Amino acid sequence: MNALDSLIAQFAKLPGLGPRSARRVVLHLIRNQEKLMLPLMTALVDTHATIKTCTNCGNFDVNDPCHICSDTRRDPSQLCVVEDIADLWAIERSRIFKGYYHVLGGTLSALDGRGPDQLNIDSLLGRAATPDVKEVIIATNATVEGQTTAFYISDRLVDCNVQISRLAHGIPIGGELDFLDDGTLGAALKARLPVA
Amino acid sequence: MNALDSLIAQFAKLPGLGPRSARRVVLHLIRNQEKLMLPLMTALVDTHATIKTCTNCGNFDVNDPCHICSDTRRDPSQLCVVEDIADLWAIERSRIFKGYYHVLGGTLSALDGRGPDQLNIDSLLGRAATPDVKEVIIATNATVEGQTTAFYISDRLVDCNVQISRLAHGIPIGGELDFLDDGTLGAALKARLPVA
Repeated sequence: MNALDSLIAQFAKLPGLGPRSARRVVLHLIRNQEKLMLPLMTALVDTHATIKTCTNCGNFDVNDPCHICSDTRRDPSQLCVVEDIADLWAIERSRIFKGYYHVLGGTLSALDGRGPDQLNIDSLLGRAATPDVKEVIIATNATVEGQTTAFYISDRLVDCNVQISRLAHGIPIGGELDFLDDGTLGAALKARLPVA
Repeated sequence: MNALDSLIAQFAKLPGLGPRSARRVVLHLIRNQEKLMLPLMTALVDTHATIKTCTNCGNFDVNDPCHICSDTRRDPSQLCVVEDIADLWAIERSRIFKGYYHVLGGTLSALDGRGPDQLNIDSLLGRAATPDVKEVIIATNATVEGQTTAFYISDRLVDCNVQISRLAHGIPIGGELDFLDDGTLGAALKARLPVA
């Protein structure tokens, strides 16, 4: 396989890309070598050389501890537990949460053979036991596995002297009732709030 | 901007990817540094170092002339004219065509200010005038600009002693009549063939 074919094959392995979109990306890169291909190469080399896993929260960053864990302006009383780094980034983009994070690295899953030992739960218990932490927000996904993991974690956290909370279920902002599933609609109805 | 953010920004510039899919790709790459990130880096560096534009047909390849132009087993009597390298690759994947190609590098477009001088038309006329070439297949897109370009080229080719042909219009294989546009259906009906 020559360099061109192998580049297309590599792009086709990325999530969300197939052979057709990989060819399109590669043609676009070759046509814009100075503007796109060289900067992408540089960014890949730099990231590969500098990326680290934060030993504190599990985030990826160029520093360890990551820029969130080393930000002293954040609120040390709140700890938000997420399944995955992508979830951490998503919450961070909302700009609402000002506490610290803890990445589990997955969910409990009997099918995939993932038990508590494969997740960063011991380090979570250690962090939750520090006197600074007053509240642990369990922000696992609203899937069966995410909820199972949430139950397990809240069970393990009862001995730590912290408030345990979870994200609210309800209608997504901008969502239309007609297109919502029954479960979400039921949860939103149950959790209805008085209009002030 | 640190290396991680700049890598995400670079991926978000590629066609078909946005900020969300770029983050997904980058997380996936960081999680699979040995299996995906390093091979991608190598393939990018290799491609950047070796990629050339074929001076004969305009294809991208690691050699000049490209592997198609330098393949002497192909039929020198047929020359297929395409707008873009992506079209060349698409026809090549069909494995039906065994002649040589010529990439125009675009279409005539009054709106975008692209005249005949911006396209590889002079070199096409030169190639079509060689005694080997008996047929020029104009495989531009079935768009207004593609068809305008096809008319212009066939007009310029009349002095060369070659047969000029175009791709057939009709129903795509696997296509359902109900979902076809009226133009295609009309063209397919006009070009109907006797059942043998």
